[in-house]
Amino acid sequence: MENEYVKEITSKSQDFSQWYVDVILKAELADYSPVRGCMVIRPYGYAVWENMQKLLDARFKSTGHKNAYFPLFIPESLLKKEAEHVEGFAPEVAWVTHGGQEELAERIAVRPTSETIICSMYSKWIKSWRDLPVLINQWCNVVRWEKSTRPFLRTAEFLWQEGHTAHRTEEDAEEETLKMLEIYRDFVETDLALPVIKGRKSENEKFAGALRTYTIEAMMSDGKALQAGTSHNLGQHFSKVFDITFLDQDGQLKNVWQTSWGVSTRLIGAIIMTHGDDRGLKLPPKIAPVQVIIVPISSQKKDMVLNKAAEIFARLKQDFRLEMDDRDEYTPGWKFNEWEMKGVPVRLEVGPKDIEKHQVILVRRDTGEKISVDESEINSKLKSLLDEIQVNMFRQAKRFMDENTREIEDFEEFKKVIEEKRGFIKTHWCENGDCEKFIKEQTGATLRCIPFEQDAGPGRCIVCGKEANKVVYFAKSY
Amino acid sequence: MENEYVKEITSKSQDFSQWYVDVILKAELADYSPVRGCMVIRPYGYAVWENMQKLLDARFKSTGHKNAYFPLFIPESLLKKEAEHVEGFAPEVAWVTHGGQEELAERIAVRPTSETIICSMYSKWIKSWRDLPVLINQWCNVVRWEKSTRPFLRTAEFLWQEGHTAHRTEEDAEEETLKMLEIYRDFVETDLALPVIKGRKSENEKFAGALRTYTIEAMMSDGKALQAGTSHNLGQHFSKVFDITFLDQDGQLKNVWQTSWGVSTRLIGAIIMTHGDDRGLKLPPKIAPVQVIIVPISSQKKDMVLNKAAEIFARLKQDFRLEMDDRDEYTPGWKFNEWEMKGVPVRLEVGPKDIEKHQVILVRRDTGEKISVDESEINSKLKSLLDEIQVNMFRQAKRFMDENTREIEDFEEFKKVIEEKRGFIKTHWCENGDCEKFIKEQTGATLRCIPFEQDAGPGRCIVCGKEANKVVYFAKSY
Ligand SMILES: [Zn+2]
Ligand SMILES: [Zn+2]
Repeated sequence: MENEYVKEITSKSQDFSQWYVDVILKAELADYSPVRGCMVIRPYGYAVWENMQKLLDARFKSTGHKNAYFPLFIPESLLKKEAEHVEGFAPEVAWVTHGGQEELAERIAVRPTSETIICSMYSKWIKSWRDLPVLINQWCNVVRWEKSTRPFLRTAEFLWQEGHTAHRTEEDAEEETLKMLEIYRDFVETDLALPVIKGRKSENEKFAGALRTYTIEAMMSDGKALQAGTSHNLGQHFSKVFDITFLDQDGQLKNVWQTSWGVSTRLIGAIIMTHGDDRGLKLPPKIAPVQVIIVPISSQKKDMVLNKAAEIFARLKQDFRLEMDDRDEYTPGWKFNEWEMKGVPVRLEVGPKDIEKHQVILVRRDTGEKISVDESEINSKLKSLLDEIQVNMFRQAKRFMDENTREIEDFEEFKKVIEEKRGFIKTHWCENGDCEKFIKEQTGATLRCIPFEQDAGPGRCIVCGKEANKVVYFAKSY
Repeated sequence: MENEYVKEITSKSQDFSQWYVDVILKAELADYSPVRGCMVIRPYGYAVWENMQKLLDARFKSTGHKNAYFPLFIPESLLKKEAEHVEGFAPEVAWVTHGGQEELAERIAVRPTSETIICSMYSKWIKSWRDLPVLINQWCNVVRWEKSTRPFLRTAEFLWQEGHTAHRTEEDAEEETLKMLEIYRDFVETDLALPVIKGRKSENEKFAGALRTYTIEAMMSDGKALQAGTSHNLGQHFSKVFDITFLDQDGQLKNVWQTSWGVSTRLIGAIIMTHGDDRGLKLPPKIAPVQVIIVPISSQKKDMVLNKAAEIFARLKQDFRLEMDDRDEYTPGWKFNEWEMKGVPVRLEVGPKDIEKHQVILVRRDTGEKISVDESEINSKLKSLLDEIQVNMFRQAKRFMDENTREIEDFEEFKKVIEEKRGFIKTHWCENGDCEKFIKEQTGATLRCIPFEQDAGPGRCIVCGKEANKVVYFAKSY
């Protein structure tokens, strides 16, 4: 009988970066590949993504969006049509120059994002106000040739969804932009248990080619911020360059107003970094590939225990994503560690004594609490317990974010806090990009967002001291 | 009030090729893109693909397979490791040579298929017999730089799934290969209503790097064959080159046995070409994005009719994929043409007279039959009608295939039939690759498969006249 123990994960407080990579590799979420900057998403990690896709896709469809698929490749001339856009993306484009044995007449970009290719089609499809709005989403891979990469957070290739919509009026486009941001907030907070700040990006930080970018910003447990989703009001920037016009009801030819919005597999990184601990991963029940792991404890009366475990498995199968670990070659202790490391929300133990008492033991991953449950009540108890864990994980993360959000109006203190404690710094800002850049140069912190919720009233800019009507969030970020 | 009619589709019998493209463009399944050989899959076409994915993915998962995601990019050295494989794919690879401003030290292939990148990971992951079998599938895009392209059938980029499994023994790999072929047959026949011939590919036609390739072959309504899915027993070809070994229970280090299998968006092309007619598309109910279209007929008593239609819509919404066409700007006649062209299996009409009689009219797309149904029975009648349409579409296609399958033992007759009638030709073959090549050169027909079902007994090879134990299928193909 083999009897290994789960190999140690680096302590989170000791070396957060190494801990992050250890968790990913040991929980088998992903692995490094032979291709520079590209990772393999392993079945356990991909199952998390599939659960996320299902929950998000249902929200898109219930708000009238349809999925489509546009080409991976974008001719260089097309990518370069919108000036700001190409400036933002050109430095990190992967270029295809040869097809088979032939050199191509024009270089082709592997899509870093799809605004340009989609706009070229919209210009063909949209003719009349009756064609609007166009509400299309695409699930796909994109490539950005980044210098330094990190699994899930920043990889040369990643998976995402990108919504691209076209509207009749500026108001319609703004409404869509904010609607999708709210869908992201709801998804990320409800299903991933990640609390976020909702707001607008500054001019310096907005998407290349957008009129306005909105964002949800999350706080990782090392005090660094992570942009969890963005929604862009593109205005008419692209529709003018790509000539996307429609005949309005009033007989006038007008340019459409557009939006785009996306979230990616980097959200898996956010889940790991927000919820994980020294034992490993901690997955929110709503997206956990395995919500309940059944571990039979059978040093004696083995057949009886395995039969009972199988009976319980069969009974719960319909309602939960569950697995049974009845492997002979590992001890129960090893299995406990293993499944805790994989972040499974609830462990269900059943042994000879439990069977005598007609009960099972449920163990919570989030708190470690052990609960005896009567056999007849497993189903309903599990249901409420998973809900409770989901809510508790959000609450814990929210408390952490609140505790690491500091209102600071003095620049020296700002520097010290960013250096020593990180977290969000809420401060007044005069809306001048130079003050924002100064902070970035001096501290490495960037302006994460101008929150919708403005509760502090006017004050003075932390850099220049001028009157400032806005309170904003700064942080170091991923 | 605008009152256009659906624009004409080229007649199928007159110009099959043009008819095919007309249907795709007019039904808005797909569109040409500004990128050479790449198409855009529009929402209506993508919804067909999503329905197909759901049905197929459920079959994969219920047989123990898990999804994962491997990189889009494959370093040239990796792609070139298995000799036959690279020979088969190198001529149609798109090459990335630059990342951002930098020229890459090694060219990178955009995956034409993922055996090599996946094998490089399996060699790292697989250590012991306990790790086997590995049963992984991937849904993704692949690129093959084809000279001449055709929407859905042959495009530079296409979407597919590729399964890649590793096993302990040759028998296990062969069992998996045949199991997946049977899953494809069941999916394609049951859900897409496409009858197929199941069999093995000849040595000349097998997958580059495989030991044996199995296939299901369908018959399009112009008499050309289409390879609808393939399943490969890779033997130990890749595991030896990529050093994928495991310690077996007997203490010996052994190479794994592998399989791979895939179907792609070309199946959408097969659906169009098998079922469509001069009115346009005809979609099997199981994968139709809209199964039922409600058309209110409201020249008089408009409010009453629209209310009744809305009431029926609400009642059916749970059980069917349905839409309501209550647009004012089109006549009922225009709408009938439009939705027939889009291949919706059933039209539900409701007008003032129907309401008086407490009934609705159902119109079948497959036969044109009109059926009056009592309002109280719409739900159950629709259910059975959709089932009936599904079965009838399969039956019609099967009859066509059978009528276009001819047993021929004389080569002159073979040439004449291929030239004038096409279809499948069933004939004896001596299993010599030269005879197979001779037929291809002389007639353009290829050996589609060596069917599992061998009902004809021995005979003489149609080319060389030598003894032949196998009857095989030849056809011109897509
Ligand atoms: Zn200032
Ligand atoms: Zn012969």
